[in-house]
Amino acid sequence: MPPIVTLTSDFTAGSPYVAQMKARVLAVSPRTTLVDICHDVPPQDIRQGALVLESSALHFPPGTIHVAVVDPGVGTTRRLVACELAGHRFIGPDNGLFEGLLRRATPGKIVELAERKFWNTVVSPTFHGRDVMAPVAGHLAEGVPLEALGPALAWNTLVRLTWPEPRRLPELLEGKFLYADSFGNLVSNVRAEDLATVPDAGRVIEVAGRAIPFVQTYGEAPRGTLVALIGSHGRLEVAVVEGNAEQQLNLAPGTSLVVRFPGAPA
Amino acid sequence: MPPIVTLTSDFTAGSPYVAQMKARVLAVSPRTTLVDICHDVPPQDIRQGALVLESSALHFPPGTIHVAVVDPGVGTTRRLVACELAGHRFIGPDNGLFEGLLRRATPGKIVELAERKFWNTVVSPTFHGRDVMAPVAGHLAEGVPLEALGPALAWNTLVRLTWPEPRRLPELLEGKFLYADSFGNLVSNVRAEDLATVPDAGRVIEVAGRAIPFVQTYGEAPRGTLVALIGSHGRLEVAVVEGNAEQQLNLAPGTSLVVRFPGAPA
Amino acid sequence: MPPIVTLTSDFTAGSPYVAQMKARVLAVSPRTTLVDICHDVPPQDIRQGALVLESSALHFPPGTIHVAVVDPGVGTTRRLVACELAGHRFIGPDNGLFEGLLRRATPGKIVELAERKFWNTVVSPTFHGRDVMAPVAGHLAEGVPLEALGPALAWNTLVRLTWPEPRRLPELLEGKFLYADSFGNLVSNVRAEDLATVPDAGRVIEVAGRAIPFVQTYGEAPRGTLVALIGSHGRLEVAVVEGNAEQQLNLAPGTSLVVRFPGAPA
Repeated sequence: MPPIVTLTSDFTAGSPYVAQMKARVLAVSPRTTLVDICHDVPPQDIRQGALVLESSALHFPPGTIHVAVVDPGVGTTRRLVACELAGHRFIGPDNGLFEGLLRRATPGKIVELAERKFWNTVVSPTFHGRDVMAPVAGHLAEGVPLEALGPALAWNTLVRLTWPEPRRLPELLEGKFLYADSFGNLVSNVRAEDLATVPDAGRVIEVAGRAIPFVQTYGEAPRGTLVALIGSHGRLEVAVVEGNAEQQLNLAPGTSLVVRFPGAPA
Repeated sequence: MPPIVTLTSDFTAGSPYVAQMKARVLAVSPRTTLVDICHDVPPQDIRQGALVLESSALHFPPGTIHVAVVDPGVGTTRRLVACELAGHRFIGPDNGLFEGLLRRATPGKIVELAERKFWNTVVSPTFHGRDVMAPVAGHLAEGVPLEALGPALAWNTLVRLTWPEPRRLPELLEGKFLYADSFGNLVSNVRAEDLATVPDAGRVIEVAGRAIPFVQTYGEAPRGTLVALIGSHGRLEVAVVEGNAEQQLNLAPGTSLVVRFPGAPA
Repeated sequence: MPPIVTLTSDFTAGSPYVAQMKARVLAVSPRTTLVDICHDVPPQDIRQGALVLESSALHFPPGTIHVAVVDPGVGTTRRLVACELAGHRFIGPDNGLFEGLLRRATPGKIVELAERKFWNTVVSPTFHGRDVMAPVAGHLAEGVPLEALGPALAWNTLVRLTWPEPRRLPELLEGKFLYADSFGNLVSNVRAEDLATVPDAGRVIEVAGRAIPFVQTYGEAPRGTLVALIGSHGRLEVAVVEGNAEQQLNLAPGTSLVVRFPGAPA
């Protein structure tokens, strides 16, 4: 079966930088299937990159190799790493990009990229995505074991990111909005699991002092209705049916939302 | 030969939702070649999605599997269907997305997606593109016959869309603009076939009271000239040579255009 | 190994016109790996297309076939050509699109596309990318030799482009900015080779009367600092560390920059 290599970056969709990375993967592993996860991570926004990886990478089949380049420290002393996680392999800078995944799955081996024989001959100090990470992905795709790429690292030496977890009180959960997706749905840091113990009917969602009904899917309420639901990322989101909640509510990322459980034991 | 699966949606180009669909196709059929047709269909705009499919899908080789997700009714009682048409197979919601194709080719078999064994184990109520349609496409790619996906449906039970057909009078054809492409070319609902009986020289195109010369290709007239021609979609369009007709004319989709045939028998 | 075909155009990322080209490549060569280099070349901007090809195409492995469609003269008497260059093959209009590559590598064979048996049966006068160039790319991928596509041409009959070369004086180099990349980094026409004879420490970069420090990579200076460096394209660029130089400096493409070599012999 052809190996799969995915690419995630802050280069913007359609950037020739993405093509240059693909060129260097294919130069090593011409039979690889390349898939873009997302290149519209805001420039240098490591946390947003970590959220994208967390929500999308593990939908791919086990064995997939994921290259992630949100790398403001490129060319400095920050490390480049490769690691195993949930049967997938990840390559990227050690700057917190894998934080979301680390909170969801138990990591396996991790190494620092040090063996220059798996890199391009010429390495630009400004583009390690193309000159280090892409050829390394190609070599992994061709069967080079992770251990060959460089010395083993302990997970507890990795750079970690503060992560926006919701605050849990007996009768409520306080979360916040992380970002809006392309439909204008406001995606929050509250996950389906956080609500699992409370039946739907017992939940009241409040945003900016406003109660929002909880539904299973967009089409359950009339067009234009503001609804709250567990969206495609497994996170609580606020949406407008066939509309754009981001535009209608004009909420910035970081705005709080509250889930009340009126029937919960105090 | 590797199977081909195309994807069309309103997720916007570069959305991680697109990647999640590809992940689920590849999880079932790793050798599939994936091609994006277009993900910039305006949100929930089924007619625009139908136009994109009509203009692009049949350029692919027979045997191609097309997945189309413009699906405001996701998770409600709207049906999901798979069908054969002109040697291709299509998967999508039964909401009119295939209207343009249905007007161009005689449909073959059609089934409702019902066999859950071809779906993801977990199905989000908000993302059937990823959790139902993508794995079903993967199974078709792997050779599962259409009939295995669910019960047969009659074509006359499908949801149909009103479709913008031009109005034909003895000496004129009245059409309208459907949309502007990325060059600002204004594409109309008048098709090459509609004009086939009248030689080029006998045509006068009028837009907003203005006569526009009919040409074969953009470069035939000097830069900046407003021209009418049969464009790449096989539709009458109005363009500015090396310019942008949408910006120059400031016409909204829906604006009328008239093709007069002065020499036609009354 | 599967052949690789890349696509570059001014259709905009995500345009269905791109998908239609891919469809016609795959119809001829279903096992081909397709890669987008860039479709965001400004409409009809041949020079920008030439810059994209120059900076990206040769990162692909030898044997890659590159199709480039920035083609304002489509359907007129302009020629379509295919050529060999640095072990790669290129297909496009004879309008200057390959100028950047011609200045970097010695060309090999070149032919005019004339053999209609390698084209689509129906050829739209407005879309030779889809109806001529894409199927020709598919045939090259399947092993058809370049010579079979049409009569040989001499390189000195090709349309050439004026090209923005820096001006060299004994103690300075005067260049200009060509464009901003997606990070807002201002990329100039000064190449690494142009600076090779002068050590880093001996260089002073001036833009709009302002001296800018020369660094090796973005992370070397504090956030917000204006820096000059050799960027990922091998060109001198001006950047703001974790910021956007284009927005901060508000410079248009074409603005001059000067590299002084104070220690150089007069």
